Amino acid sequence: MEKILKGAAVVGQSGGPTAAINATLAGVIRGVFADQGEHITRLYGMRNGIEGFLAERTVDLTELFALADGSIDEEKVTLLSHTPAAGLGSCRKKLPDPHKDTEFFENLIALFKKYDIRYFFYIGGNDSMDTVAKLTEYLKTSDYEMCAIGVPKTIDNDLMGTDHTPGFGSAAKFIATTISEIIRDCAVYTVPAVTIVEIMGRDAGWLTASAGLPGIINGFAPDLVYLPEVTFDMDEFFASVKEALKKHPNVVVAVSEGIRFADGRYVGEGTQSGSTDAFGHKYLAGTGKALELAVKAEIGCKVRSIELNLPQRCASHCSSLTDLTESSGAGMAAVKAAAEGISGHMISIQRCEGAYAVDFKASDISKIANQVRSVPRDFINAAGNNVTKECLEYILPLIQGEPAIAYKNGIPVQFVID
Amino acid sequence: MEKILKGAAVVGQSGGPTAAINATLAGVIRGVFADQGEHITRLYGMRNGIEGFLAERTVDLTELFALADGSIDEEKVTLLSHTPAAGLGSCRKKLPDPHKDTEFFENLIALFKKYDIRYFFYIGGNDSMDTVAKLTEYLKTSDYEMCAIGVPKTIDNDLMGTDHTPGFGSAAKFIATTISEIIRDCAVYTVPAVTIVEIMGRDAGWLTASAGLPGIINGFAPDLVYLPEVTFDMDEFFASVKEALKKHPNVVVAVSEGIRFADGRYVGEGTQSGSTDAFGHKYLAGTGKALELAVKAEIGCKVRSIELNLPQRCASHCSSLTDLTESSGAGMAAVKAAAEGISGHMISIQRCEGAYAVDFKASDISKIANQVRSVPRDFINAAGNNVTKECLEYILPLIQGEPAIAYKNGIPVQFVID
Repeated sequence: MEKILKGAAVVGQSGGPTAAINATLAGVIRGVFADQGEHITRLYGMRNGIEGFLAERTVDLTELFALADGSIDEEKVTLLSHTPAAGLGSCRKKLPDPHKDTEFFENLIALFKKYDIRYFFYIGGNDSMDTVAKLTEYLKTSDYEMCAIGVPKTIDNDLMGTDHTPGFGSAAKFIATTISEIIRDCAVYTVPAVTIVEIMGRDAGWLTASAGLPGIINGFAPDLVYLPEVTFDMDEFFASVKEALKKHPNVVVAVSEGIRFADGRYVGEGTQSGSTDAFGHKYLAGTGKALELAVKAEIGCKVRSIELNLPQRCASHCSSLTDLTESSGAGMAAVKAAAEGISGHMISIQRCEGAYAVDFKASDISKIANQVRSVPRDFINAAGNNVTKECLEYILPLIQGEPAIAYKNGIPVQFVID
Repeated sequence: MEKILKGAAVVGQSGGPTAAINATLAGVIRGVFADQGEHITRLYGMRNGIEGFLAERTVDLTELFALADGSIDEEKVTLLSHTPAAGLGSCRKKLPDPHKDTEFFENLIALFKKYDIRYFFYIGGNDSMDTVAKLTEYLKTSDYEMCAIGVPKTIDNDLMGTDHTPGFGSAAKFIATTISEIIRDCAVYTVPAVTIVEIMGRDAGWLTASAGLPGIINGFAPDLVYLPEVTFDMDEFFASVKEALKKHPNVVVAVSEGIRFADGRYVGEGTQSGSTDAFGHKYLAGTGKALELAVKAEIGCKVRSIELNLPQRCASHCSSLTDLTESSGAGMAAVKAAAEGISGHMISIQRCEGAYAVDFKASDISKIANQVRSVPRDFINAAGNNVTKECLEYILPLIQGEPAIAYKNGIPVQFVID
């Protein structure tokens, strides 16, 4: 698209929340205010993503974040960026095939026309990029001109075409911090004990890999780290735990929720709920619990499991300043790209050579959606029970810096979009 | 005891770790340095509590925390106080009856004589106060003169004779912060869902009560809060959850791990491991999981459970400045009391009238050990499914303030006593 459009913009958040998804929303808001109406006349927020938009549930973000003189209320925007989870609400809506269910897209386009929306920003993970890709595909067949841009978000760090994803750094910082504290907690007794920490990541082991970070920072790391990228073998696991117990009594193991046996079964399958989400992904629970019971039966020592659970994706009080800054940067880059007439692209993060720094780039979304970027095999040790120093050095810059979180009466201040 | 003693001191930490137990150790160290050798000539740390001391596993803390000129290394002491879990290690040793197993105590006294130890400081919970009480009891029959002082520590806040316990405020702050973030996370979808958060506290519900704090701070609180002080009724629970689901789709429930049915069975009993700790306490796991399965079967909506687990007691990065300051203050007060010849006492925290402030007092330990201070019934609502404003106002001052945690490379700096 070469023609420069003028009109309103709409922004939505979709998929699982992160501690940084509002920082990206803040970036889009900053970008729109910086545009000063040259291309974007007004910014609407979709409540609960595309699903809420179809029901015309929107909020006028230009109005909400403007000071009396029309300039941006940066204090409010900063509070928003420090608030966890999707401020606009989220959804898990899979769009139909744009070549088959044209009615769905016609309805969508009718709404865009109604609000004079020429810019569509969608913040989310793999499934959300699929939404942008499908809309882009449909737009090729429509005479309505608009820009659709995806802005990545996922704690899983498993999107293709980007060095890393906004939201991952904060989750990794929370995991590294918490593992570091758990290791101290586990070190106080002399009785042999195994502590198994279950970490999110169904298909990609980036979050679990982050558990190893304290090792290159203060020298204390989990003894064993198991990612879904390597087939899990129970006998090898027992042997590794026994070996670790010979070295010191407090063995800490980090495991991904998504580890599987050679036959494809999830390790946590025995304790899983059996339900699947809207995208057909199996819902897992209890990988740590399954290993706890296994170690208890095989080794007989004290053993416990800890599931880090939701705080991995919503512990804003422990977010990474680097992540929040880049997340906002990605949102601003999306507005800039759209104002330049780019459409059907996802904003990606490119790591520069030398000292850590990043550039934002717009990448063709059709080449990105519905793929998973796994931890490469050479980031995992030969035995498959830990990550390499190169892996940790890749993650380390992403957890740097602590945002100045505002507290009121003992807890962090949140900005809630009513 | 009126005679003022001069000699070495020994300090130990015992029982479960907290985020503030090292702040109390820091307070004892500060107190000893402030004494400038007038009463206490040297401070030894017992490794792994009384158990390690019996094996003569000690560390010279005077040496470890002194600058070249002999003054206190306040930077190191502050880092220690920001490090979670017992820096000296812990144990779960129940001392024998001082009137029956005199040999045990004779061995102990022999070691005190060997190191010229006249001051014994023991930081811990109920079981640790039992240790101080028994040593005190034995000392009455011995001609060896020494002071034994207990310094309270427990996230459970269930010790008698003190307004609250060091360690509780930090755990409460972590719980309030995390619940506040989980509430945001749960608010993003429109599909009815119940989220059950399981919180520590076997017999006392103080920690679970803390989950209600965001309600009086920012207006967002769990819909239902269940403490072990009130008998749990599954039918009433279902009715309350259904009622809450009528008001909004994202219901959050906070439950104590120790809630029981009218017949005395723990709600989590079906999923418990069956093992007991050294003091005969039943080890529980899965109260949240049990309720999750019950809600799924009865209501059929989306439901999940989250166990906050170990981070409740070791999340130093989210500790309360008020708690850390008071925890250190209690340690300093212990040294001061001992130097005044007080023995057989526990340092207690007394809340002053008016604006929040505290005094430290030495309370007779024989009246404190082995009792549990529960949440009073009038701090719980009539329906037994939430806490009152008065309860929250009692807790609120304890979570105030954020310590200036030092970070290195993205995670908090810890001071590890090698």
